[in-house]
Amino acid sequence: MQMLDLIRRKREGETLEPAEIEAMIRDYTVGAISDYQMAAFLMAVYFRGLSREETAALTRAMVASGEQMDWKSIPGVKVDKHSTGGVADTTTLVLAPLVAAAGVPVVKMSGRGLGHTGGTIDKLESIPGFRVQLTREEMVRQVKEIGLAVTAPTGQLAPADGKLYALRDVTATVESIPLIASSVMSKKIAAGAGAIVLDVKVGSGAFMPDLDSARELAWTMVALGRDVGRRVVAVITNMDEPLGMMVGNALEVREAIAVLSGGGPQELREVCLTLGSQMLLLAGVGDSGDVCRQWEGIPAGATAGTRKADRRLEGFPPGATGSAREVHQGQEGSLPEAASNAKEARRRLEDLLTRGAALAKFRQFIAAQGGDPAVVDRPELLPTAREQVTVTAAGSGYLSAVQARLVGEAAMLLGAGRLTKESPVDLAVGIELKKRRGDYVSAGEPLAVFHINDRTNLEAARERFLAAYTLAAAPPAPQPLVYEIIEG
Amino acid sequence: MQMLDLIRRKREGETLEPAEIEAMIRDYTVGAISDYQMAAFLMAVYFRGLSREETAALTRAMVASGEQMDWKSIPGVKVDKHSTGGVADTTTLVLAPLVAAAGVPVVKMSGRGLGHTGGTIDKLESIPGFRVQLTREEMVRQVKEIGLAVTAPTGQLAPADGKLYALRDVTATVESIPLIASSVMSKKIAAGAGAIVLDVKVGSGAFMPDLDSARELAWTMVALGRDVGRRVVAVITNMDEPLGMMVGNALEVREAIAVLSGGGPQELREVCLTLGSQMLLLAGVGDSGDVCRQWEGIPAGATAGTRKADRRLEGFPPGATGSAREVHQGQEGSLPEAASNAKEARRRLEDLLTRGAALAKFRQFIAAQGGDPAVVDRPELLPTAREQVTVTAAGSGYLSAVQARLVGEAAMLLGAGRLTKESPVDLAVGIELKKRRGDYVSAGEPLAVFHINDRTNLEAARERFLAAYTLAAAPPAPQPLVYEIIEG
Repeated sequence: MQMLDLIRRKREGETLEPAEIEAMIRDYTVGAISDYQMAAFLMAVYFRGLSREETAALTRAMVASGEQMDWKSIPGVKVDKHSTGGVADTTTLVLAPLVAAAGVPVVKMSGRGLGHTGGTIDKLESIPGFRVQLTREEMVRQVKEIGLAVTAPTGQLAPADGKLYALRDVTATVESIPLIASSVMSKKIAAGAGAIVLDVKVGSGAFMPDLDSARELAWTMVALGRDVGRRVVAVITNMDEPLGMMVGNALEVREAIAVLSGGGPQELREVCLTLGSQMLLLAGVGDSGDVCRQWEGIPAGATAGTRKADRRLEGFPPGATGSAREVHQGQEGSLPEAASNAKEARRRLEDLLTRGAALAKFRQFIAAQGGDPAVVDRPELLPTAREQVTVTAAGSGYLSAVQARLVGEAAMLLGAGRLTKESPVDLAVGIELKKRRGDYVSAGEPLAVFHINDRTNLEAARERFLAAYTLAAAPPAPQPLVYEIIEG
Repeated sequence: MQMLDLIRRKREGETLEPAEIEAMIRDYTVGAISDYQMAAFLMAVYFRGLSREETAALTRAMVASGEQMDWKSIPGVKVDKHSTGGVADTTTLVLAPLVAAAGVPVVKMSGRGLGHTGGTIDKLESIPGFRVQLTREEMVRQVKEIGLAVTAPTGQLAPADGKLYALRDVTATVESIPLIASSVMSKKIAAGAGAIVLDVKVGSGAFMPDLDSARELAWTMVALGRDVGRRVVAVITNMDEPLGMMVGNALEVREAIAVLSGGGPQELREVCLTLGSQMLLLAGVGDSGDVCRQWEGIPAGATAGTRKADRRLEGFPPGATGSAREVHQGQEGSLPEAASNAKEARRRLEDLLTRGAALAKFRQFIAAQGGDPAVVDRPELLPTAREQVTVTAAGSGYLSAVQARLVGEAAMLLGAGRLTKESPVDLAVGIELKKRRGDYVSAGEPLAVFHINDRTNLEAARERFLAAYTLAAAPPAPQPLVYEIIEG
């Protein structure tokens, strides 16, 4: 009777009381509210939205539905990073050791890939021996020792969110900004994040197809962070084309190593530096001498080659890393303090990459979790596919679009990703991209190399992959890589 | 996967294919689609609506989900009547014998009361000995013999509608015009109706609170009738105040007898004559000599007194029975054919009331279904409450509002109606109204007499009842009794 009234009032566009939302989530978690009533409520929310207060109440209720991680015994601000999901997006693998090397404690829970998007835990599993399931005690010990630990979720974090998400997934109620925001934030808060940098992707491969929705989601989460007592910075980044040049688990580990070595695709490096400097600012490590002391200790010989350095930097137009309003850039003399700090943080991160400190931290991290750190210097120790198939362009012209979602789906068809949570994943397979949006290609020129172990879906994958590419007679207008940075 | 796609497309405002809706209803009926997916779909329909084609497909699919009554062995057009539900609305009890006396075969399935509205089957059960559950064979035999049979539903009529309605009831998705229209029509079609007169109520005691929604529902059902091959006429009538003066099962049987005797409250009589003449027109009996022959056989002495005749006829302003556009009235010479026929049909019905033919048919009907026809002449044979409590006005003034819903709820509290389908009903109890909207009352003057067997809820009922009344210094503007007649 009570729930019927809540559904009706939400349907009529009314705002519910925080206590009503909390009771609803409590009852739903224990099964006292049926899935069919919740499904009707969620669809009403899809159409009517939630107020800022309702969204905060929902988030708090989902956090309270399960265990809450407590990392207080680890000193420093625990800054988490969350991405709304992308293709060839291995930023977590780069950022975790990078910001840890800068003195930010990283206590991270990551997920697995689903659909066209990859997941950090799958990628880490491609490192021989790597343990992705740590206990809380192991996490704390490891972070205290080396400043960094990454695990698959432990315990029952925000079970209400898990139950609600499963229902939203089968009732076409996923695409609601307050529901997305509360889902993301409840998991991060339950995982013990003290502050959060959100990478809100926008474009063909992203959950948010257009900048307006991405912006709304970003602002919603930043406001929500403030309401639930967590500092949140949202960075809106481009996911129209794949971010890096590798799609697939072991392949993305190779690419992360390249970036950590100071090289790698410029776009991936750029997004890592942008997100990483925001993480440093939130952690407040810029004010501490610890950071400098930490990177002074790294031997100079640890710096790897810049295999792909400076690749296509010319592709970015002036201001391509964001709109003038929110992104902090320009002449040093005219910078506000935050922007100046961001620039300083970025320089520190660049230095950690150049000096090999980030790569050294990655080796240390792999060894601490039981993996073979030799993969860092000998990537051929990672799972390698039996066969490489070159996919070539049928026509000539400028690549005016490379749709990330289709590239991700092609990789999934090759076995690199999951259609459902139960699907097996082949860690060795994937797609190595050879061209980016804006490049000129001639007929017969390679667009990509497929790394495969099984030819079953090869033709379907090739077809899906080629559908991602649009050829044009003239080069396309450049797109920003980082659209906006929104601070709480 | 398929249902998820249908939910998403409806959520986006797309129009589904008839075959998709039919498959969906088929799968839902057998349990192959979950309640939670259907609940999300229904809420999306609440916001996005259904096209005319979708509504027809849904109706056909719900009809096809169960048995379909076939009354072909009974000659003539089987005209059914459906009311969207009201208070002190005993039109079915009047109309069934009245139009049967006029030669229209009545093969009717009726329901029980729920909430603040009454149900014909409960009312009939208050007649001692009356059997409300007939087999199909008994129905056919009885209609062939006396032209009239009324039963509680037999068999599995539109089980998909039953299942969907139960879900809508608990997910706040009842109030959707295409869902209401398809639900009503699917039940009527499955029950074997050849043509349907719909009484769409509007006002405080009705499902449709305002004339615009009532009009939309009426037009939707008339169009739907055309699409599924049934002639439908919708009459929009006033349910702002209770229609008659009696609320409660045995009390309403008494009132029906009064109307069938040529008396009764003018408003109830008027609505019966309006609906009845439309039924005659749909049945085409106006063109047949049978009708005249039938009423020639009624003895003159059968006419009962006009106990409440001419009561408050002056309360209706000119044109109060409807807007000029749709309601057929005016000078005989200027009438279009349909209006002229309606006027002629109405005169026949008035004559059947005056001559006692309708009352005689009611006696025959009661006897045929095992009841005691003596109740017609001696209403004290009906269940009678032990106690009568007069409820008086606290202040003086004109009654500017008598909210039908609150009166119905007060009667429910006395035991006359059901809060849930499982609640027991006391057939003897109810409310006898003494005043109508527009009447002047002095403080201490009786507003009503409560007929009660149990004082438990008496004060709660009195409070609810008195809340229905608004006093004003000046008489209120008159309201139409019949707003519009919409023909298919």
